[in-house]
Amino acid sequence: MKQGVGEIRVRYAETDQMGVVYYANYFVWFETGRTEYFRDLGMPYSEVEKNDILLPVLKAFCQYKSSARYDDLIRIVTTVASLQEVRMLFKYELFRETTGELLAIGETEHAFVNRQGRPVVLKKHNPFLWRRLQEAAGEYAE
Amino acid sequence: MKQGVGEIRVRYAETDQMGVVYYANYFVWFETGRTEYFRDLGMPYSEVEKNDILLPVLKAFCQYKSSARYDDLIRIVTTVASLQEVRMLFKYELFRETTGELLAIGETEHAFVNRQGRPVVLKKHNPFLWRRLQEAAGEYAE
Amino acid sequence: MKQGVGEIRVRYAETDQMGVVYYANYFVWFETGRTEYFRDLGMPYSEVEKNDILLPVLKAFCQYKSSARYDDLIRIVTTVASLQEVRMLFKYELFRETTGELLAIGETEHAFVNRQGRPVVLKKHNPFLWRRLQEAAGEYAE
Amino acid sequence: MKQGVGEIRVRYAETDQMGVVYYANYFVWFETGRTEYFRDLGMPYSEVEKNDILLPVLKAFCQYKSSARYDDLIRIVTTVASLQEVRMLFKYELFRETTGELLAIGETEHAFVNRQGRPVVLKKHNPFLWRRLQEAAGEYAE
Repeated sequence: MKQGVGEIRVRYAETDQMGVVYYANYFVWFETGRTEYFRDLGMPYSEVEKNDILLPVLKAFCQYKSSARYDDLIRIVTTVASLQEVRMLFKYELFRETTGELLAIGETEHAFVNRQGRPVVLKKHNPFLWRRLQEAAGEYAE
Repeated sequence: MKQGVGEIRVRYAETDQMGVVYYANYFVWFETGRTEYFRDLGMPYSEVEKNDILLPVLKAFCQYKSSARYDDLIRIVTTVASLQEVRMLFKYELFRETTGELLAIGETEHAFVNRQGRPVVLKKHNPFLWRRLQEAAGEYAE
Repeated sequence: MKQGVGEIRVRYAETDQMGVVYYANYFVWFETGRTEYFRDLGMPYSEVEKNDILLPVLKAFCQYKSSARYDDLIRIVTTVASLQEVRMLFKYELFRETTGELLAIGETEHAFVNRQGRPVVLKKHNPFLWRRLQEAAGEYAE
Repeated sequence: MKQGVGEIRVRYAETDQMGVVYYANYFVWFETGRTEYFRDLGMPYSEVEKNDILLPVLKAFCQYKSSARYDDLIRIVTTVASLQEVRMLFKYELFRETTGELLAIGETEHAFVNRQGRPVVLKKHNPFLWRRLQEAAGEYAE
């Protein structure tokens, strides 16, 4: 099963008055994880959208284990946990790079839709991306 | 069971290039729901923090039903779904005010900790807030 | 000269580890000032965009006088400082509602462009909005 | 005169419904420019704060030349334009990495204060940082 590995550095803007990163920002980091995942597959998400496929989020979840802090280097490990005809599930693990400490785990479920918001069957609409995602997810059987 | 009802108007900053609100922003709106909830209880969250009680998020979840758009008026309905000695669970429902349409449902689970990050038993540390939350959650038995 | 008056409540998400509002968020608040200004004119900004007029920002400035804090109620006073054929200038003053204290002043300059990014002469493209803005700016002479 | 050079990749969260980056986010990028600048000087900004020196923003300005887009790689060039006893001025230039195109220029002016918000004379409070900044600014004469 393919892993996408990205890295971000915590911005001052992302902290709050508790002195740690505000919880909603982890979902933005998940997005950077997805972005790097698609790039690694050979089809950047900007290309996916140009092919008239959007991946709006259906569900999002995060469990917070330890606080990220300003200027921390965060490693984002992204995997495809499930791939179906009209939807898919990403999983994320966030680590503090310097210590290896697990900061959070999360999931986002996405639909495949076109610009009009109608569901598209990815396998028909973009066989290349479908195959790459299948390989990445380690699910070779159709 | 008490409901807190807040209202926000969608900002341009909160949209993304899909033309709708970016998914992480719903979690910021949940926070405004919590803030109004505490104010309604007679103890604004800023006061809670002055009493050396912080409520970091342990888990956060959102299910997206329909897209919020720029300038939409959003109604945020907040309830306390569970109240325990050292943690609590908020539930949220977001509606488009003009149509009544349900946009999203969500949950956030919070710990009670002090500024040093140590768990505090809310009932002992702040009996007033504990009682108000209990009443709000509809759990009168200790 | 017309003044638009809006109000926002500071979100926890908008604070940073200095314990006050992060400086970039004032520009988001300016945007809510503009939004309310257009609504008051009888043409919400969402309508302006439907008429194929966008107002991208050319320049933005803010001077910070005093810190906004979590849960502060902020009054945003917006005026049109200058109106030209293909651009306009908004000015903003932000006050802490409870004390009347001036928190910041700012400006944003905007172009009038269509969806293709080409400049449009507002007077021709949307005479209604042009007249309303002129009246608002107190410049009755063409 | 020393230049700090940082790089960020545009996040989907940073775009708005105009299809380009929302204007307030450029100020967040300026902050990442400052952060890398301090790191290059040998004193990360997180260390500066541990030495009880904060640099709140007094004024911020940005001029937008061309739009940044999702997934663009942005180069941030940061310089110290002025260094005084109790304040300093950073200048920024943002470029699209792939084309070299100048996207924006900006400035932020900062005070030197302690945690109580009182002005501190940097030269006395932290001679190391003062000297490093002086060298960086190319102003060797006291």
